[in-house]
Amino acid sequence: MDPRVDPGMDPGVGVALGIGLELGMGLGMELGLYSFAETRVDPETGRQLDAGARIRNLIEEIEVADQVGLDIFGVGEHHRSDYAVSAPAVVLAGAAARTSRIRLTSAVSVISSDDPVRIFQDFATVDLISEGRAEIMAGRGSFTESFPLFGYDLSDYDELFAEKLELLLHLRDSERVTWEGTHRPSIQDRGVYPQPSQDPLPVWVAVGGSPRSVVRVATLGLPMALAIIGGHPERFQPVVELYRRAAEQAGHDPATLPVSINSHGFLAETGDEASEIAFPPFSETMSRIGRERGWPPWTRQHFKAERSLTGALVLGSPQEVIDKIMYQYELFRHQRFLLQLTVGPIPHEKVLQAIELFGTEVAPVVRREVGGEPPKSGTQPSSGEQRAPAE
Amino acid sequence: MDPRVDPGMDPGVGVALGIGLELGMGLGMELGLYSFAETRVDPETGRQLDAGARIRNLIEEIEVADQVGLDIFGVGEHHRSDYAVSAPAVVLAGAAARTSRIRLTSAVSVISSDDPVRIFQDFATVDLISEGRAEIMAGRGSFTESFPLFGYDLSDYDELFAEKLELLLHLRDSERVTWEGTHRPSIQDRGVYPQPSQDPLPVWVAVGGSPRSVVRVATLGLPMALAIIGGHPERFQPVVELYRRAAEQAGHDPATLPVSINSHGFLAETGDEASEIAFPPFSETMSRIGRERGWPPWTRQHFKAERSLTGALVLGSPQEVIDKIMYQYELFRHQRFLLQLTVGPIPHEKVLQAIELFGTEVAPVVRREVGGEPPKSGTQPSSGEQRAPAE
Repeated sequence: MDPRVDPGMDPGVGVALGIGLELGMGLGMELGLYSFAETRVDPETGRQLDAGARIRNLIEEIEVADQVGLDIFGVGEHHRSDYAVSAPAVVLAGAAARTSRIRLTSAVSVISSDDPVRIFQDFATVDLISEGRAEIMAGRGSFTESFPLFGYDLSDYDELFAEKLELLLHLRDSERVTWEGTHRPSIQDRGVYPQPSQDPLPVWVAVGGSPRSVVRVATLGLPMALAIIGGHPERFQPVVELYRRAAEQAGHDPATLPVSINSHGFLAETGDEASEIAFPPFSETMSRIGRERGWPPWTRQHFKAERSLTGALVLGSPQEVIDKIMYQYELFRHQRFLLQLTVGPIPHEKVLQAIELFGTEVAPVVRREVGGEPPKSGTQPSSGEQRAPAE
Repeated sequence: MDPRVDPGMDPGVGVALGIGLELGMGLGMELGLYSFAETRVDPETGRQLDAGARIRNLIEEIEVADQVGLDIFGVGEHHRSDYAVSAPAVVLAGAAARTSRIRLTSAVSVISSDDPVRIFQDFATVDLISEGRAEIMAGRGSFTESFPLFGYDLSDYDELFAEKLELLLHLRDSERVTWEGTHRPSIQDRGVYPQPSQDPLPVWVAVGGSPRSVVRVATLGLPMALAIIGGHPERFQPVVELYRRAAEQAGHDPATLPVSINSHGFLAETGDEASEIAFPPFSETMSRIGRERGWPPWTRQHFKAERSLTGALVLGSPQEVIDKIMYQYELFRHQRFLLQLTVGPIPHEKVLQAIELFGTEVAPVVRREVGGEPPKSGTQPSSGEQRAPAE
């Protein structure tokens, strides 16, 4: 079994579709990007990327993504020297001030080691600056540095996430909050300000594929972002199936609950060029992170397998990327696809070119092929509605 | 005694100057604005201001302040329905993305009820987006809503501030941090990222005038922002004197420690027009807040006294505002003056006009009259230096 696949997921679970396939029909697809703002050695100059330059480049990436009509951009939270962003809402606020249409999300907010009240206030503020374009993607984070930094115990990993998520959802429900839990001081009938423009502020949950997480997200009636960053995407069919069935069993209409597939990849005019640009940083990054996690090193052979139609890497010419997204669409009937271009440092100009290709050559074709109206982001029964401004 | 004057300050302390007057000579003065982004009833429309509209207007105010050459803009933190900003760093990031020269500070960050690690990360991120223009103004806050919201006990008011400030300063000193305290989990040799562009990131402390606070700020060798929002500014001369003497006694060179005076006010083409615009919202706001604090209501008579040369309100025609600032300069020889224009909601266009007058008609004259080079903001021995970017 590929160690990159979440071991909690049983790849043997049946692949019979049905509910998923039917549900996806006609809902359309949102296309976007996400970034962790890595600050490793720049392959162009051989020097460590300055965190400031990296963040300012990132904001320019979001601007270009907005200009070429992409639907959404996500920014991750990390607390390590090799990533520039520990405060995604602050970076997204900078991007909000320079964009007009693109939605802005964390990818992910590590809610377990943070205070949901601050997260809610920060993203409500981004939502107000952007006139209703903010989202929170809650996750456990794929690194654990934030736990000791903020005084949390990794042995509470699961409980922390569940409790903080519950408080975050509670904050969305009403302006005044009364709440009691174990890992954060209780709140006795306090107002939380500012309130966001969207009601409710969209909250997605990112999962790696473990059935327990998937069932929880489905039961809560929240949209699910599924990271597929290695192995055969086909193996995740049962995960999406489980999500939709569990949502239905919990009394939610799965048709209102979008699924996002988040994957690594890159694109250039030709597949060879995309490989040439992306292989060195991708393999360096994945091998380095893999060493921390006991994964095998990334070889060129592995890269080639991941690049194939049935592999996880969404990398190649615009047409190859279209084919890969449509292949995934046949598997998942998902409503959102997010691509991480900079898995390791890639020259800024190449990234901007990839964003332009993704927005102008890939997105229109995928949207046409999928058809339908793209769902309102973060759709929940009442989501996507703007509160009527008072003036 | 005017109840707006901090009761901890003894107005009888001698007024003999010396050290203060000498020190101020030749250092120049920075001029700026600050706002709390109030969302009370808009006097123009009679409707409650939408928090989103208020925040977007605020960012436009900062843009105009940047365009007319003002030195700094501050944004306050509040956790009440009548103010739109609880996350100043998020708003400042939006402003950073749209400005190029103006410095951006909180005014204040309520550090007592927050985690200094998050504050440092948020403002380091603003510093990177703005290429070295961020500052933190730490304060206790003039409201107490944040304490119950974030689970702090008001009886720890003083201890919380001291401990959180100490950690914040510790975070400035080194990338890796080991720390132990009472009100926040300990940190065992962890790195904090991203690191800011400025080294050190400027940290000011805002005080109301209590000698104990003033001596602490001076002893720590930090720049002091003194709020004078009522009564005769002259009464604060001993406070500034005390600050400079205490700094010297603690082994700091007072010449490197700037003082900021933060006051309420407004300006328009004529003094009458400024009064006409500002009196209704100022008196409504100050009377309402005064009711919470046991102050007397603001009458037109009181307003008139505060407007006079020896009163605290910096309000009038550009020439009257120049005269008031220069009067204060004779008293304090301060290096920064910050004006709060929107003490209560004022029509957006009138605020933008006031900002333009302040930048184009007041600031150049004050700078010329004060002379000297304006000090590097937040000057501490090694402050204001930019870290050499890695590329």
